[in-house]
Amino acid sequence: MSIRIGILGYGNLGRGVECALKQNPDMELTAVFTRRSPQDVKILTAGVPVYPVEQAEQMADKIDVLILCGGSATDLPVQTPKYAKLFNVVDSFDTHARIPEHFASVDNAAQSSGKVGIISVGWDPGMFSLNRMYANAVLPDGADYTFWGKGVSQGHSDAIRRIEGVRDARQYTIPVESALQAVRSGKNPELSTRQKHTRECFVVAEAGADTARIEREIKTMPNYFADYDTTVHFISEEELQKNHSGIPHGGFVIRCGKTGWNSENTHIIEYSLKLDSNPEFTSSIIVAYARAAYRMNQEGQKGCKTVFDVPPAYLSAKSGEELRKHLL
Amino acid sequence: MSIRIGILGYGNLGRGVECALKQNPDMELTAVFTRRSPQDVKILTAGVPVYPVEQAEQMADKIDVLILCGGSATDLPVQTPKYAKLFNVVDSFDTHARIPEHFASVDNAAQSSGKVGIISVGWDPGMFSLNRMYANAVLPDGADYTFWGKGVSQGHSDAIRRIEGVRDARQYTIPVESALQAVRSGKNPELSTRQKHTRECFVVAEAGADTARIEREIKTMPNYFADYDTTVHFISEEELQKNHSGIPHGGFVIRCGKTGWNSENTHIIEYSLKLDSNPEFTSSIIVAYARAAYRMNQEGQKGCKTVFDVPPAYLSAKSGEELRKHLL
Repeated sequence: MSIRIGILGYGNLGRGVECALKQNPDMELTAVFTRRSPQDVKILTAGVPVYPVEQAEQMADKIDVLILCGGSATDLPVQTPKYAKLFNVVDSFDTHARIPEHFASVDNAAQSSGKVGIISVGWDPGMFSLNRMYANAVLPDGADYTFWGKGVSQGHSDAIRRIEGVRDARQYTIPVESALQAVRSGKNPELSTRQKHTRECFVVAEAGADTARIEREIKTMPNYFADYDTTVHFISEEELQKNHSGIPHGGFVIRCGKTGWNSENTHIIEYSLKLDSNPEFTSSIIVAYARAAYRMNQEGQKGCKTVFDVPPAYLSAKSGEELRKHLL
Repeated sequence: MSIRIGILGYGNLGRGVECALKQNPDMELTAVFTRRSPQDVKILTAGVPVYPVEQAEQMADKIDVLILCGGSATDLPVQTPKYAKLFNVVDSFDTHARIPEHFASVDNAAQSSGKVGIISVGWDPGMFSLNRMYANAVLPDGADYTFWGKGVSQGHSDAIRRIEGVRDARQYTIPVESALQAVRSGKNPELSTRQKHTRECFVVAEAGADTARIEREIKTMPNYFADYDTTVHFISEEELQKNHSGIPHGGFVIRCGKTGWNSENTHIIEYSLKLDSNPEFTSSIIVAYARAAYRMNQEGQKGCKTVFDVPPAYLSAKSGEELRKHLL
């Protein structure tokens, strides 16, 4: 029998989960839950119902894992503990600073319900965290570097859109190649914010808007742009649609560490991603962890987990025997 | 109380384990066991005894994890099951094709003793396997590529040394840059053995040896060299010592996969290592897994495990809380 999956929230991430399920024949999509009018939500999978979100609670015995595809700012802090009382759940909570408190509230709910809730699944937090952790455990004497990009930052694009006279915008975060090379060389450089990433903005201005002012407001915006070398390009709406409608992303996790009785040897561990679609890749990771949530719960485990707690084999549809034979 | 470690076999790997333990304050070296005369084995750590290998069995209650640093050809198939009857053990068994049978014999021993035996720990098998497995679970529709090097292959160096007229030799395995680039581009190329790696040999010939014959014998050697583009350089013993006495290695694990309802998006996951010392890096991984073996056994687990079965957090000296706060 396949693992029955519910999707709560059908935006880019929910649609990505739906696509990923198609690639995993041991899992099936049972229902999509939405806060919109169900008749307005057209999904891709034939024969699968779309229900109003209120109906989820009545389907606790029909769904093995509920995947929460809401946002980290306001949705997940409420939804994940709420649904962990009834379902095994997986979310992609990505507000790094608030992970400890989110963990505590999900753990509280899942301990009492006997379910498993895996939080902060994706690539950062997620695969990048795993690589930081493995590399730290293997090379305790070393330094970590994480670079993001080249990719679209939704938050920075939104920040530009809020400026008066901006109709639309897309912001790319770009790692500085010379900084990457310095890290890879084993020099353990100290890098400032400005030395690690640049920001490139493509802006569609309203007709007659003061582009010099817009550019100045972007470049001096605290937190978002002031600490970076930022480039601003004004382009037409057509060009934005044509060349900047994708959601690519990626990045690098590098650890440089020493071994040897006198720390005489240097080692570089590097993990990198180059992604055509940030939400689809994130969803693919979430689906693998949904499999793990189901299996761990089947074994009697409960409570909140992160990628650090999940044995790698639980992510794979293959048996231990197959994994040892073909991938070890 | 710190985790008490024994080392069985004091070659490059055993010495690497000793160095790695110095970087992990929650662990301590309790004893080294050797098949040589103990008085001939000088270790680096002050105050730690070197015993003949026969004495290991009498120290089952003084050692939490015994790290087996023998070779995969003849030592580990005997030693790992033997010592798993008395100790939690970790080995670096790396004969890929024989892993299933090694797993079975260690599992048999460790199930009956109630101990944990983690086998095939290192970087390949080991960290590379983990990265293949995670990438396969996340991107089920894709292709895997593993490249090794640039690094010294001990097996190939030994094969050259067995040729008549060769005094010493060092062989480097080198990934072909254009093949790496083709894989990274997302083209999913089909690559022959010859297209993936080249082999570069540095040979010290005996005085008066027929170097043309040696070169021909190397380049036509079946399995080892015949399927590769091989370069042979004859150098002096001094040059070999000066420029080729290190044991660097490394490599790349790349998975290229598709997502999207119509497989329209491509993603590249790449993991790479650049290592000054192959045995010291391998040892550093083994030591992290020794921590995991101890913890898993403390929890009541037993039997044979591989890197696929070990929750990442068990490798780290940090608490779950610290890991979530700082590395997630």
